[in-house]
Amino acid sequence: MSATLAPTARVSPDAQIGAGTTVGEYAVIGAGAKIGAGCAIGHGVVVHADTSVGDGVRVDDHAVLGKTPMRSLSSATTQEKQLAPLTIGDGCLIGTGAVLYRGATLGRRVLVADLATVREDVTVGDRTIVGRGVTVENQCTIGRFVKLESECYITAYSTIEDRVFIAPGVVTSNDNFVGRTEERFKHFKGVTVQRGGRVGAGSVILPGVTIGADALVAAGSVVTRDVPPRVIVLGAPARIFRDVPKEQLLDQQGWSDQV
Amino acid sequence: MSATLAPTARVSPDAQIGAGTTVGEYAVIGAGAKIGAGCAIGHGVVVHADTSVGDGVRVDDHAVLGKTPMRSLSSATTQEKQLAPLTIGDGCLIGTGAVLYRGATLGRRVLVADLATVREDVTVGDRTIVGRGVTVENQCTIGRFVKLESECYITAYSTIEDRVFIAPGVVTSNDNFVGRTEERFKHFKGVTVQRGGRVGAGSVILPGVTIGADALVAAGSVVTRDVPPRVIVLGAPARIFRDVPKEQLLDQQGWSDQV
Amino acid sequence: MSATLAPTARVSPDAQIGAGTTVGEYAVIGAGAKIGAGCAIGHGVVVHADTSVGDGVRVDDHAVLGKTPMRSLSSATTQEKQLAPLTIGDGCLIGTGAVLYRGATLGRRVLVADLATVREDVTVGDRTIVGRGVTVENQCTIGRFVKLESECYITAYSTIEDRVFIAPGVVTSNDNFVGRTEERFKHFKGVTVQRGGRVGAGSVILPGVTIGADALVAAGSVVTRDVPPRVIVLGAPARIFRDVPKEQLLDQQGWSDQV
Repeated sequence: MSATLAPTARVSPDAQIGAGTTVGEYAVIGAGAKIGAGCAIGHGVVVHADTSVGDGVRVDDHAVLGKTPMRSLSSATTQEKQLAPLTIGDGCLIGTGAVLYRGATLGRRVLVADLATVREDVTVGDRTIVGRGVTVENQCTIGRFVKLESECYITAYSTIEDRVFIAPGVVTSNDNFVGRTEERFKHFKGVTVQRGGRVGAGSVILPGVTIGADALVAAGSVVTRDVPPRVIVLGAPARIFRDVPKEQLLDQQGWSDQV
Repeated sequence: MSATLAPTARVSPDAQIGAGTTVGEYAVIGAGAKIGAGCAIGHGVVVHADTSVGDGVRVDDHAVLGKTPMRSLSSATTQEKQLAPLTIGDGCLIGTGAVLYRGATLGRRVLVADLATVREDVTVGDRTIVGRGVTVENQCTIGRFVKLESECYITAYSTIEDRVFIAPGVVTSNDNFVGRTEERFKHFKGVTVQRGGRVGAGSVILPGVTIGADALVAAGSVVTRDVPPRVIVLGAPARIFRDVPKEQLLDQQGWSDQV
Repeated sequence: MSATLAPTARVSPDAQIGAGTTVGEYAVIGAGAKIGAGCAIGHGVVVHADTSVGDGVRVDDHAVLGKTPMRSLSSATTQEKQLAPLTIGDGCLIGTGAVLYRGATLGRRVLVADLATVREDVTVGDRTIVGRGVTVENQCTIGRFVKLESECYITAYSTIEDRVFIAPGVVTSNDNFVGRTEERFKHFKGVTVQRGGRVGAGSVILPGVTIGADALVAAGSVVTRDVPPRVIVLGAPARIFRDVPKEQLLDQQGWSDQV
């Protein structure tokens, strides 16, 4: 069983495409790209040079895989260097118009929904969902079984541990100096959400804040300080309200870590 | 007057395209798709199988019509089933890069702006505006003459009645259990905004909340409880401030319901 | 040194393309478009008629340049008129899937990141960054060296002066009547952020508000009234907290205005 390429697909002669994979109309697959077996590559998809895609991956129309960062002269965080090729694990789903950068690594069965962006120097763990329109900026570590819900924003230099839940519209930030002073470059720090932490819809998390394991930030909060494990905080600025109910704790869910 | 297809458009032999319709370069039109008369289909547009487009519809570059949902193993709300083809009524405008799913139905003269998403099992009424970058998740009912302004987020299982106005950046949510407990599956509930209700910029609406007819949520509020008809609420949590001024009530506008 | 066109690029016979410019697969370049020297135009890019692109510009995959506005019958702010062609200055970077409208003008070395939109009747000054997913609505003036960070929303009829910093997820608004009364058409007013003003992550700015020079709005605030120069405001509604620290003032940064 060989690959099925649409007549208009432009595939570099030295790209590799696995058995049973289909490639849509007007797709472009660059030099040195490797696409596994049993994949479905949509119409107008662009796979840039050297990108590695596992088996059984679905990539929807117009997604762009392996984009090289655009270096602005006035950006504070993008550095010049060589980036490893984008790597996408087995069984991933990549949405329409999604943009994945060179230098990102996705585990197995990750879902990156429509119009989401994952930038360079990011790892995303197995079975994680990167929701519709989500941005994961550069230099982030995203764990396994994480849910980054639609339209949330993960700032550069953040760490999101396993089983974290970030609700729609959450905004994070990493610069307490808001773009001023040379000093700020020493202090850029994203947010950390520890294992099982949860952040409610539309909340804002300030630079450098750590949200403790299994803690819960109520919707619409502004989190200015670290949150201890297993408590609920709410308000602006967010304050401790009470403990997370026992039945909502991560170890009460009976969830398997099998990918 | 027959259709005008760009030389590079890929049109399935059993697709139907109406008189006077133009199809752009590198567009892909799938099997069984029906496109009406007098339409303008942009460059790189993808129309998936069976999609039905009315007369006089403008579809801008790179829009994707009739996408099949991507089923994640760990998503809570997507169910396996057969979806009816996407249906788009006469006179609609569909923006650049917009993504409309199989299983959605758009009435007449609906505007779906650039980079917006309308998912499966959604109906959108006549003359409604789905703004730039808006997400309407699955299982929503959106009325007629509604304005969903840029970048607002409509969670799954929501009902937005006629003449509702949702301002930019509004976030809604549907899970009070924030992703934990089996119990939560019984309680998933989006938001309801009754006829003529209005929600100000950047507000956050909690799961299951109903906003009464002609009520107004002030910008930046966090709405945790139901809002009675014809009152203004504000703050976090939102509390009643005063009545909506008479001259702003829906029945004072002299608006016609003609499509 | 002539231009290098991919074999599948569709270039209008009367488009002009400068020396050393490369054009990707499945790009479409319309009648009367002028592209300068040393540019890199990605795959699937659409350049609509008459668009003018300077020298040394990078345009990433699937970007759409020179889109004509979609006129909705029920939009309050879009007017019928002739728009000048889109103009993009030397050294700009235009991201994947970005949408730039006819009637917009970009200065030199502007970065428009992935999936951002700049609408008609907008000017963007030299060296400004329009971040990922940002919307700049119609009728806005954006100064030089401005940073509009990821996912912020700039409402129609706004003025953003030089060296302003708008953090991620900021939402602005322009209609105090929230879509009701004929009266409102006389009062539509966006926001003004004066030279060096800064707005923190996730803040909401109400219609017509002016944020003074070098003032700072703390993250998560709701700004309902004008903010004086050089003060920090915070909260909902935002109130004056203290002066901006001297070391964060614009004239203390030693920044050059050289483009």
